[in-house]
Amino acid sequence: MPELRKDPVVGRWVIISTERAKRPKDFVAQTVEESNETACPFCEGQESQTPTEIFALRRHGTAKNTPGWDVRVVPSIAPILKVEGNLDRRGKGMCDMMNGIGAHEIVIETPKHASDYPDLDEEQIAKVIMVSRDRIVDLSRDIRFKYVLFFRNHGLLAGASAIRHSRSQLMALPVNPKRVKEKLIGARKYFEYKERCIFCDIIKQEKEQSVRIADETSDFIAITPFASRFPFELCIYPKEHSPDFTNIKKHQIGDLAKILKRVTTKLKTALNDPPYNLTLHSAPFKRMTRSGYWKTVDDDFHWHIEILPSLTRVAGFEWGTGFYINPTPPEEAAKYLKEIEV
Amino acid sequence: MPELRKDPVVGRWVIISTERAKRPKDFVAQTVEESNETACPFCEGQESQTPTEIFALRRHGTAKNTPGWDVRVVPSIAPILKVEGNLDRRGKGMCDMMNGIGAHEIVIETPKHASDYPDLDEEQIAKVIMVSRDRIVDLSRDIRFKYVLFFRNHGLLAGASAIRHSRSQLMALPVNPKRVKEKLIGARKYFEYKERCIFCDIIKQEKEQSVRIADETSDFIAITPFASRFPFELCIYPKEHSPDFTNIKKHQIGDLAKILKRVTTKLKTALNDPPYNLTLHSAPFKRMTRSGYWKTVDDDFHWHIEILPSLTRVAGFEWGTGFYINPTPPEEAAKYLKEIEV
Repeated sequence: MPELRKDPVVGRWVIISTERAKRPKDFVAQTVEESNETACPFCEGQESQTPTEIFALRRHGTAKNTPGWDVRVVPSIAPILKVEGNLDRRGKGMCDMMNGIGAHEIVIETPKHASDYPDLDEEQIAKVIMVSRDRIVDLSRDIRFKYVLFFRNHGLLAGASAIRHSRSQLMALPVNPKRVKEKLIGARKYFEYKERCIFCDIIKQEKEQSVRIADETSDFIAITPFASRFPFELCIYPKEHSPDFTNIKKHQIGDLAKILKRVTTKLKTALNDPPYNLTLHSAPFKRMTRSGYWKTVDDDFHWHIEILPSLTRVAGFEWGTGFYINPTPPEEAAKYLKEIEV
Repeated sequence: MPELRKDPVVGRWVIISTERAKRPKDFVAQTVEESNETACPFCEGQESQTPTEIFALRRHGTAKNTPGWDVRVVPSIAPILKVEGNLDRRGKGMCDMMNGIGAHEIVIETPKHASDYPDLDEEQIAKVIMVSRDRIVDLSRDIRFKYVLFFRNHGLLAGASAIRHSRSQLMALPVNPKRVKEKLIGARKYFEYKERCIFCDIIKQEKEQSVRIADETSDFIAITPFASRFPFELCIYPKEHSPDFTNIKKHQIGDLAKILKRVTTKLKTALNDPPYNLTLHSAPFKRMTRSGYWKTVDDDFHWHIEILPSLTRVAGFEWGTGFYINPTPPEEAAKYLKEIEV
């Protein structure tokens, strides 16, 4: 059973994945090559190569775990967290821990062997968004979970596996991720002071200043954040205030697919298909109030998508200090991306 | 002038280094090779290849910027922050910023072309510690600075340059690094509740449990932290309580040199000379109290050194979420390291 452990000083949770424990020799001379692409387990027709599907958007009359699907969700073959069991929160002296309970699902984004959003059409990406939303809603019913994270790794350097078949991941967690919590706290403080959503105010200011807009559609805006940590970092916001991604409206789904295809295509063109990580930050579906009750999400958060290209080789200094050094001013990154025709 | 920018939501400061701004093409097909080692600017005799020295531990009678030194400190040839100017804190709407004022110095740790602590003798490492301490004390007199960070990058993947000459870096910052601040806050909360230093309590518990001790000398203990983020992560604590590294005692310097040489040699043996980052976390030399006065460092912090090997290729998921997945339980890492004879 993997274990969740809490740092006694800073309160950060980490997952110690005891079952795939690595010994020193596993790290030595580790090289990963792009695999033989003919043997892709995510392609249509290879359904038997994955664990049993959890859900698939299928053509009428096709059977589970057979061809005939557009988007298919399967459990991870090497799950970071296990779905069976109880959390069993406990302490030993100063050390707090709980069982590594959670869900880890793979959303196979296309039946064809395509590697990323630029290769998919907008309708296909819209289907991915719909299926992911439905899976998040389903996972949110499990009272052990506090957050479901949707993320995508593109390219080996961004942590993707050697199999280049477009997919994203869903991870249901029994704790809120630190970066989400930091944003929630910051946004709440601002809301308490101003009685306005900080993200709505950021969007308003970005539109006024108009120097960090990388792309825009009718419902969404993609900006290079003022205090970007990484070159060509992007943040996609829905223009209309909404704390919770799962409440996305029908017309917004198509428009989100459009801006996702556009900005990933721009990145691919500008930076020669860079590795990147995409993360969806939405309000947790359950939040403990100060009085100890669960309440539904309030007006102080605004869901968004972060895209972090892995362009700078190194990050060790940042790991140790939390101090980021970004060699590309976001205003220049926005200018480059804006000018690329897609 | 580089610019320090504050994220409006989470309050994190980043450095936008406008003067070495990178365009998209700079990131494309970027490869770095180990350089031609015959042309090392850090070797004795090559003093003219570096900026004018700030300080050197020299044999009596040798002139500045000539051979005859044991440890030599020079300004970085590509400083991340600039030493001349005022901070000029300012805001533009929701965006807060200040000038990128600071100091960025290189501590050349040996006149010979050696790459890391395992190649140096303990006396030499002790000299590095003494010189670094003196430079931190000197930089702390500048009222613009709140923190001086001592760190080392070993190996290309950990952000070191292609020149493999053992050196560390000092960066004087006008703000406290986020990770240091998080530790200060956590330690203070614990102190307020328990009236004891959290790090002293951790050391006591680690000695009792005795499963995460990687090495130990008379004055220092090296542990693999309970909630380690990375495989073979190490933390070196002085056993005697002390908030501030610059108050290190004479006999502790030699002993710190000893444990540094021992643990880096163990890592080199176990993991085939892995890239790693080493960071010194000491209490900031000035701290704003709640009543607004500067006060000297209190009893609620305990200086220490973090060593983070860069063994896992990828970190993108962690960047997006703050959630770490560690495939090597720290108890196993400690066991491996403990058993290695040095």
